[in-house]
Amino acid sequence: MSVIDNLISALQVLPGVGPKSAQRMTLFLLQAQRPGGLELATALTSAMQEVRECSVCRNFTEAAICRICNDGGRDPRLLCIVESPADVLAFETAGGFSGRYFVLHGKLSPLDGIGPEDLGLVQLGRLIQGEVDGAADGDKNRVEEVILATNPNVEGEATAHYIVQMLSAEPVVVSRIAHGVPLGGEIEYTDGGTLAHALQGRRNIG
Amino acid sequence: MSVIDNLISALQVLPGVGPKSAQRMTLFLLQAQRPGGLELATALTSAMQEVRECSVCRNFTEAAICRICNDGGRDPRLLCIVESPADVLAFETAGGFSGRYFVLHGKLSPLDGIGPEDLGLVQLGRLIQGEVDGAADGDKNRVEEVILATNPNVEGEATAHYIVQMLSAEPVVVSRIAHGVPLGGEIEYTDGGTLAHALQGRRNIG
Repeated sequence: MSVIDNLISALQVLPGVGPKSAQRMTLFLLQAQRPGGLELATALTSAMQEVRECSVCRNFTEAAICRICNDGGRDPRLLCIVESPADVLAFETAGGFSGRYFVLHGKLSPLDGIGPEDLGLVQLGRLIQGEVDGAADGDKNRVEEVILATNPNVEGEATAHYIVQMLSAEPVVVSRIAHGVPLGGEIEYTDGGTLAHALQGRRNIG
Repeated sequence: MSVIDNLISALQVLPGVGPKSAQRMTLFLLQAQRPGGLELATALTSAMQEVRECSVCRNFTEAAICRICNDGGRDPRLLCIVESPADVLAFETAGGFSGRYFVLHGKLSPLDGIGPEDLGLVQLGRLIQGEVDGAADGDKNRVEEVILATNPNVEGEATAHYIVQMLSAEPVVVSRIAHGVPLGGEIEYTDGGTLAHALQGRRNIG
């Protein structure tokens, strides 16, 4: 196999990249972006080798403790539990949340053999009981509210439910993010489950 | 910049990859495909460093002379002139062409400062005059027909026209690929220029 065919095949490891776009990418890099291609190779090697999980929140980081856990300006009393690092990025991009996160890296799925131990729930328990050394300030974590931000589907709900049970003995408030009609969405085209949640979760505004 | 941000940014050198898909690719590789990510890095480095132009046809290859030029089974009398390596791949995938290629790596475009010398036309002239050592059989190239397969747009036509002029003194047949309604296309939705070409290029079948 030539090095060109080799690159076309290797690019297809990327999600959403098939043979056609891999070929287009390969020829583009060879023709117009060899320095960029080499930079990408270096960036890939560093990331694949250096990135690990934050020892506090399990988010991806190349340090022992991630930037967010290390940020003394973040409120250690609020802990938002998400399924994946992509969810952390989504919340961070949205802005407005000043607390910290805990990343499950999955959701409970007995059929796939994913149980509580795979989601770091033991570590979550220790974190909430203040047994994990947290942020740069050297403080023990003192979580007061746990916000469950797993996805609103069967497995995400089951995961949230499991964590509620697990934390029932702890002196923390446990909340769930609101489900309802998304901004910019249209009620006419919103599914029944979402509308039911939107009605249940209604608030007084007058 | 963290190594994760670095990879998200480096991936955007790829055509069709914006911040959103770069982020998705990065998290996917970190979560599920670190070996594949490392292989991609190796493949990228090799390709960016080793791939050069074939000394006969200017197509991309890591050898001095590319696989097609080196293939004694290909007809050296037929030479198909294309704008890019992607065009060679398209013809090879289609199959049915047994000759060889010459890759211009562009098209005449005075406004962009791309002239005949950038397209290797001097080398093309020498190739057709039999002054370039060609295939593995050690034969001089003995091109009898030059097929112009530049794209059917203004610059591609101008490039084809220029090559026709350039080769007017050589003892070779010069032909142009047919333009017409593509297979699977619908006459109703075909543009006027294409239909005019389709009519002009009609053939007796009865």
